[in-house]
Amino acid sequence: MSISLLVEPDDTSIRVRHAESSDYQSVIAVVNDWWGGRSMSDMLPKLFFIHFRETSFVAEINGEMVGFLNGFFSQTYPDTAYIHFVGVHPAVRKLGVGHRLYNHFFDASLKYGRSLVRCVTSPVNKTSIAFHKRLGFTIEPGNVQADGLQVNQDYDGLGEERVLFVKRL
Amino acid sequence: MSISLLVEPDDTSIRVRHAESSDYQSVIAVVNDWWGGRSMSDMLPKLFFIHFRETSFVAEINGEMVGFLNGFFSQTYPDTAYIHFVGVHPAVRKLGVGHRLYNHFFDASLKYGRSLVRCVTSPVNKTSIAFHKRLGFTIEPGNVQADGLQVNQDYDGLGEERVLFVKRL
Repeated sequence: MSISLLVEPDDTSIRVRHAESSDYQSVIAVVNDWWGGRSMSDMLPKLFFIHFRETSFVAEINGEMVGFLNGFFSQTYPDTAYIHFVGVHPAVRKLGVGHRLYNHFFDASLKYGRSLVRCVTSPVNKTSIAFHKRLGFTIEPGNVQADGLQVNQDYDGLGEERVLFVKRL
Repeated sequence: MSISLLVEPDDTSIRVRHAESSDYQSVIAVVNDWWGGRSMSDMLPKLFFIHFRETSFVAEINGEMVGFLNGFFSQTYPDTAYIHFVGVHPAVRKLGVGHRLYNHFFDASLKYGRSLVRCVTSPVNKTSIAFHKRLGFTIEPGNVQADGLQVNQDYDGLGEERVLFVKRL
């Protein structure tokens, strides 16, 4: 897994497009590596690349896949869009790839009349928490406070605590 | 985890209702046990109980949760509904709980104009394959044939082969 960046990428060299089913293989092949070896692939079945393509995006630099985002429009809450999974290649972090992916998701959400965006993250993921705050997300009340954070214990299963984010577009 | 069945349940004693967010805790607490100890909970984040409630169901016998089904309407394919996850308590298998859950999903699909139902299963899960065939699902072409079955290799990640089912309502 090498990124052959001949030049430092600027904002314009990052291309974001809708995800296709065929992107799944390249994403799932790298996702555990991008998370530093954590086993994440069970959380990302292929269905997100097939059935939620309007709200799923891939970022490329020089034609190489360097990031992806999988989200959906809530079926139950007609004002809500939800971001399920986002990954950025470790070699290109802090270049705005994540930001660009989120902006595409926000645009798609507004286009389909969704004014509220929600997502969750693990409280240990301080980078993710800071990223969401920079993008204007606020943290929703939890059932405990830990490290000054509102946290929902056992949210995604036993021991799976989550911080809940919401942003009004 | 005990099922206190004073009488043998008949079809009428099985009650199926829409899933609520609050059902998630009781489902996620049993899902690994119901799969014989396999670690399945990562595949079932809470989002399915929040954002896809029209297509998610819980089955109860005497008020006790004995089965659940989580599905959704494809956002990309307007004719398609998809079943993501189904579980039935081992103590009440072969009593028609799964069948009842699928029928509720089929009814919801038709109500919202979805004529095609899709789902996938692992080729080692012979019980699941037989169940889907009994319900009228057919198996879609795979990229290999194994044990007389059409199988898609690496479908849900490396080594995660799947049999693809489809049923026209």
